Amino acid sequence: MKLIKRSENYSERYNQIVQEAQLAENSSVRWCMVIKPYGFAIRENIRNILDAMFKATWHVNAYFPLFIPKSFLSKEAEHVEHFAKECAIVTHYRLKLNDEKKLVVDPEAKLDEELIVRPTSETIIRDSYKNRIHSYRDLPLLINQRANVVRWEMRTRIFLRTTEFLRQEWHTAHASKKEAEKETIKMLNVYSDFASNYMAMYHFIGQKPEHEKFAGADRTYGIEPMMQDGKALQAWTSHNLGQSFAKAFDVKFMNEKNELEYVWATSRWVSTRLLWGLIMAHSDDNWLILPPALAPIHVVVVPFFKTQEELKEIKKYLKPITKKLEKMNLIFDSKVLKKYKIKIEIKIDEDDQKSPWWKFNEWELKWVPVRLTVGSKEMAENKVEIYRRDTQEKVLVEINDVAKKVEELLYEIQKNIYDKHEKFTKENTFVVNDYNEFKDKIEKWFVLAHRDGTTETAMKIQDETKATIRCFLPNDEKEIGKCIYSGKESKGRVLFAKAY
Amino acid sequence: MKLIKRSENYSERYNQIVQEAQLAENSSVRWCMVIKPYGFAIRENIRNILDAMFKATWHVNAYFPLFIPKSFLSKEAEHVEHFAKECAIVTHYRLKLNDEKKLVVDPEAKLDEELIVRPTSETIIRDSYKNRIHSYRDLPLLINQRANVVRWEMRTRIFLRTTEFLRQEWHTAHASKKEAEKETIKMLNVYSDFASNYMAMYHFIGQKPEHEKFAGADRTYGIEPMMQDGKALQAWTSHNLGQSFAKAFDVKFMNEKNELEYVWATSRWVSTRLLWGLIMAHSDDNWLILPPALAPIHVVVVPFFKTQEELKEIKKYLKPITKKLEKMNLIFDSKVLKKYKIKIEIKIDEDDQKSPWWKFNEWELKWVPVRLTVGSKEMAENKVEIYRRDTQEKVLVEINDVAKKVEELLYEIQKNIYDKHEKFTKENTFVVNDYNEFKDKIEKWFVLAHRDGTTETAMKIQDETKATIRCFLPNDEKEIGKCIYSGKESKGRVLFAKAY
Repeated sequence: MKLIKRSENYSERYNQIVQEAQLAENSSVRWCMVIKPYGFAIRENIRNILDAMFKATWHVNAYFPLFIPKSFLSKEAEHVEHFAKECAIVTHYRLKLNDEKKLVVDPEAKLDEELIVRPTSETIIRDSYKNRIHSYRDLPLLINQRANVVRWEMRTRIFLRTTEFLRQEWHTAHASKKEAEKETIKMLNVYSDFASNYMAMYHFIGQKPEHEKFAGADRTYGIEPMMQDGKALQAWTSHNLGQSFAKAFDVKFMNEKNELEYVWATSRWVSTRLLWGLIMAHSDDNWLILPPALAPIHVVVVPFFKTQEELKEIKKYLKPITKKLEKMNLIFDSKVLKKYKIKIEIKIDEDDQKSPWWKFNEWELKWVPVRLTVGSKEMAENKVEIYRRDTQEKVLVEINDVAKKVEELLYEIQKNIYDKHEKFTKENTFVVNDYNEFKDKIEKWFVLAHRDGTTETAMKIQDETKATIRCFLPNDEKEIGKCIYSGKESKGRVLFAKAY
Repeated sequence: MKLIKRSENYSERYNQIVQEAQLAENSSVRWCMVIKPYGFAIRENIRNILDAMFKATWHVNAYFPLFIPKSFLSKEAEHVEHFAKECAIVTHYRLKLNDEKKLVVDPEAKLDEELIVRPTSETIIRDSYKNRIHSYRDLPLLINQRANVVRWEMRTRIFLRTTEFLRQEWHTAHASKKEAEKETIKMLNVYSDFASNYMAMYHFIGQKPEHEKFAGADRTYGIEPMMQDGKALQAWTSHNLGQSFAKAFDVKFMNEKNELEYVWATSRWVSTRLLWGLIMAHSDDNWLILPPALAPIHVVVVPFFKTQEELKEIKKYLKPITKKLEKMNLIFDSKVLKKYKIKIEIKIDEDDQKSPWWKFNEWELKWVPVRLTVGSKEMAENKVEIYRRDTQEKVLVEINDVAKKVEELLYEIQKNIYDKHEKFTKENTFVVNDYNEFKDKIEKWFVLAHRDGTTETAMKIQDETKATIRCFLPNDEKEIGKCIYSGKESKGRVLFAKAY
């Protein structure tokens, strides 16, 4: 396979990485993907860390039905507008063999009401909350669900947009508007913590403008990392739903003043789309690049041996190191998870059908952060060769120092990936005050610019440049200015970008 | 709610337990359940332990599509016979608003080929293996998937049989018949280990007769625990699929002799049905009974306090205990997981709106194995009251001994639950040599009896008694005898029972 450069054809390069690292592949089913073991292992690491974060913030997991009655989708007007169009619809519940012995849908097994395969779960979850919430004492209800969802997408692409994808979704219920807003911000910050400290992604964070809100929400916030082609990724948003779904599904509670009140709600989710973000933010012209915090294997050992006897000797030689490493844990900086331990995973590649160089290549493609090489030469010197995946440097290290060195390297590699992404984002985010310059920069990069705050202006800019307002900057960075498009007053710069 | 006794109406009693312990509930969607946080936490503990067992036996997780093209189901003849009948069928991919502004299925968005919501995944997974397996070096392929599946069941019941349920499914591929058989038995034993040591379930284990095999399998094995109404539960089976799916999906590999050969396959799964088994095997007239190995909370602390000041004091008093307990791990006997650690989970119920007695009741219903009670009286004596959930005994224990005592109790309770189930099963499993006695005993209990080995006899017995052959007994328990029905020669006793 000829390596394509990012600058030649970035999306082809993406496909190559997904294939080379054996992350996922297309299936025989229309635009549904198969997530392969190595890709799924990364996804499980993401799940485990997020689950620990949910637990640390007192959220609990539950599970709600895959199917949504058609009538449910009609209940929240904006919601149906947004979701009900392209979706998988179950209309029948039986197949039969016809007279020609062919398998056909049994026309007599038609459902009275069609079921929609969940494109999102707000409606079915809010409906079930109706039975669970009676008084303010039942609140808050902080529930997370992990589920597959289906949207009949047109331009599909592995991890970014597929007909079926996997996600985690929070649907919380609160006794006041204030509490709901607090939860919305708090959990946005949990996502931000995860993005920085585990996914090694620098990002902007802030509120979305009115016209970019989630269908049915009062307020939407998002975090915005830059992909290497200068686009933003819509992947982490947090919604304050106000009372709209409570009204649509009649979810009321008795408040502390003994009055019936509609419940206040929030929701947010992340999906397998994070894997797209991970690749598009970090990978270079040569490889997938994987932050050690999410790597399924941290250390691969490639022994140089000809006989099983030699292999045995090498394994004996390495035993003290692997024992030490297996007891070590990585703990990354995180405000949410102060002591979350990630076990160092070691793989000794004992395959005697493949040459060491073949193995080198395989593990390079999967971007295992650290590789140890041992043969008779190293053993004679009481050393091990350590190869560091990010800088591709090799060092010979005294056997007693190997475990410590490996631990140091894993932290260093994690930090370097983050630092590189931060530098790249900052270098390619431009403060712009002029519309011509805006049009030039926005073609490729992030722009911080003033706008007058009207949807009309935002839409005109979008029509002319394909860029959208990704988020407002935080309050402490506010600055009064003039809209780059209309010249009218602006109360603060916002982040513009093209986005996936 | 009036407590119903198991002897009055066992299935009503079951429903009460599911409701009281807040495990799950019916949803607004046809026979789909909502798994509530406490029930889902038990299911997650099951998942975590099984995942550790899969890892210990070198299996990896992956994910395959939710939808199966209709034509796939037709490819394996027995398979379609068994599964294709009652299933959810996606026929359209778009809704639209009609002239009356009602949401309807868009007739123009009809699929060329209908998609079936997976009732099981053999076909889609084997199809994807075709691209992955080329040579014997690609084998074995040991893949596990966690997924929701849908079967259009008629008589539904929470956890036992619902339209949608969650499960883990293994689909492995091997280079020889022998290896496939070895895997089938090995992983059956993994299930057996899990059932004994974590679910605290005594059980029979063995091969299923020809007519009870999985559709498309060469051989099926199962493990058979007794529910308290004397029925068996069909929940853990292990299938040697031979080459039938490989032939249907044309999955071939180059073997060591350089010949093209169809791949040898196995599959097996467990589902949320295990939760039905857990309740039906252990729970009594009063409560859910939960083995500590699977309990979401091991220790609940109910403090007696009137003011926040008093609560603070109690928490300070308990701090050394909770600290000690939080560092403790439970390690249960298991051949597969020698050192799997289960963190002791502690919950301090600080709610100041509920009385301690109200809390006692709540945690009794959820069957938290150990309860600690502390008030000013206990503090004055430097003690803590420990309540042991299974025997309902209370003891006052010196504060320094509490952690150790709690640990001991958790192991003891686990053992007692298993011992009780073993005793119950053994007492109610009858060795029978006469058909009249058989008919009498099989009405309610397990029976070990001789049969002539023909499907015809098995079917006649089933017609007359509703009992099926659950499994053959292991080879070392073989004994020649005469069929209780036909009087013909029998090569060994088998386990008969009615089953869920």
